[in-house]
Amino acid sequence: MIECDDVLTPVQLEAALRRIGAERYHSLHPFHRLLHGGKLDLGQVQAWALNRYVYQAAIPRKDAALMSRLRSPELRREWVRRIHDHDGWGEDEGGIARWLRLTDGLGLDRDYVISEEGALPATKFAVEAYVRFVAERSELEAIASSLTELFAPAIHEERIAGLLAHYPFIDENLVAYFRRRLNQAPRDATFALDYVKRHARTRAEQKAVLAALRFKTDVLWAQLDALYFAYVEPALPPPGAFRPALGAASRRS
Amino acid sequence: MIECDDVLTPVQLEAALRRIGAERYHSLHPFHRLLHGGKLDLGQVQAWALNRYVYQAAIPRKDAALMSRLRSPELRREWVRRIHDHDGWGEDEGGIARWLRLTDGLGLDRDYVISEEGALPATKFAVEAYVRFVAERSELEAIASSLTELFAPAIHEERIAGLLAHYPFIDENLVAYFRRRLNQAPRDATFALDYVKRHARTRAEQKAVLAALRFKTDVLWAQLDALYFAYVEPALPPPGAFRPALGAASRRS
Repeated sequence: MIECDDVLTPVQLEAALRRIGAERYHSLHPFHRLLHGGKLDLGQVQAWALNRYVYQAAIPRKDAALMSRLRSPELRREWVRRIHDHDGWGEDEGGIARWLRLTDGLGLDRDYVISEEGALPATKFAVEAYVRFVAERSELEAIASSLTELFAPAIHEERIAGLLAHYPFIDENLVAYFRRRLNQAPRDATFALDYVKRHARTRAEQKAVLAALRFKTDVLWAQLDALYFAYVEPALPPPGAFRPALGAASRRS
Repeated sequence: MIECDDVLTPVQLEAALRRIGAERYHSLHPFHRLLHGGKLDLGQVQAWALNRYVYQAAIPRKDAALMSRLRSPELRREWVRRIHDHDGWGEDEGGIARWLRLTDGLGLDRDYVISEEGALPATKFAVEAYVRFVAERSELEAIASSLTELFAPAIHEERIAGLLAHYPFIDENLVAYFRRRLNQAPRDATFALDYVKRHARTRAEQKAVLAALRFKTDVLWAQLDALYFAYVEPALPPPGAFRPALGAASRRS
């Protein structure tokens, strides 16, 4: 039995981190059950994709904020790959461009998506809270907050299968983002997990690391709460937020 | 005759920026005259190289701080090259590693250099002031503060020639950093100058851009004032700062 204030071994710390995923990762959110189960109409899928764009677009800013605090060139050289993954580099168009293929394919105007004008305020607040967390907390907490990537491949597998099976308006081109992340996320998560296990040595550091991952699961969960409230039940989008066209709503799969 | 509050044309703005370089760039500092003219002893060159390391090592943090605020993936993709230039990427060891070849070659212990323990407090203050400026000011000011690179090739040419001609302890391997910057700096400076000319459209923006470049020349100049004071005249290194070994001082070229 582990007492509350014992220092965890690296193996115990990893187990505690994975337990947070099992209990709090947004794969458990009812909105994702609806999305992956084919229960949403086109307008609701559009709302999800344009809100999630805000998150995707902010990830390189988040990673640059972390890099601006790393004093090790080796660590920065590892971390900069994440910026390339999203912004593109060389031949690779990058994850943000792949996400825009999804929103294009869903019939959303690209400039409107990029402007973020129709995104929910709660989405923007959650995303900026994440960027600020990484900019302001310790390196260790900032790196630990990336560990939701440990749990991403499972949800991406489920999402690819669900989207392709249930929605006639979604094809392979539109899920390119998730296919690519199947390889990228495990590489990044392995590095970050190893870093955290090596560097979180005191109980205070371990508590901070666990809290950072819980914070990050909150950031993800809050975005889905806001989507659910605005577009599922009671379906009350706030002033200024995206409203699905009638045509979109009628194309329920 | 241009009145004080007229909006400058892009061509006039460029001329005003270049005038700042002509009047304030650290190529004019007496310490550089001594360095490039072969008037320093080994210990003084060591002091210069280990202090300047602090600046070199901070550049990627500065560029990441800027990237953490850029909302355009295209602009970030351009800017991230600067991080690669310094941290290394793929086959390229990067500018920080090239700088360490210089400090190695000068006989300084690598861990001591990287620890920054012997660097002058004034160096660290100036460098961190630059990182904070870029993190906190407008994108336009942050980008404008990089424009000292417009003036860098001339000083690098002069430095390579002067160091090789005057100091028996400096060879081609030790000036690799400057050789490489001869190509990198003009590419970066051209991009940043074009950006500033396109985006500084109001007089207030133009004043901010000019002030940013003046600030940056202050950052560079202050580092040389501190070196001069500590190691040339009156030659009073502050407590804890690097002190050249007697052996080093005797190897005056």
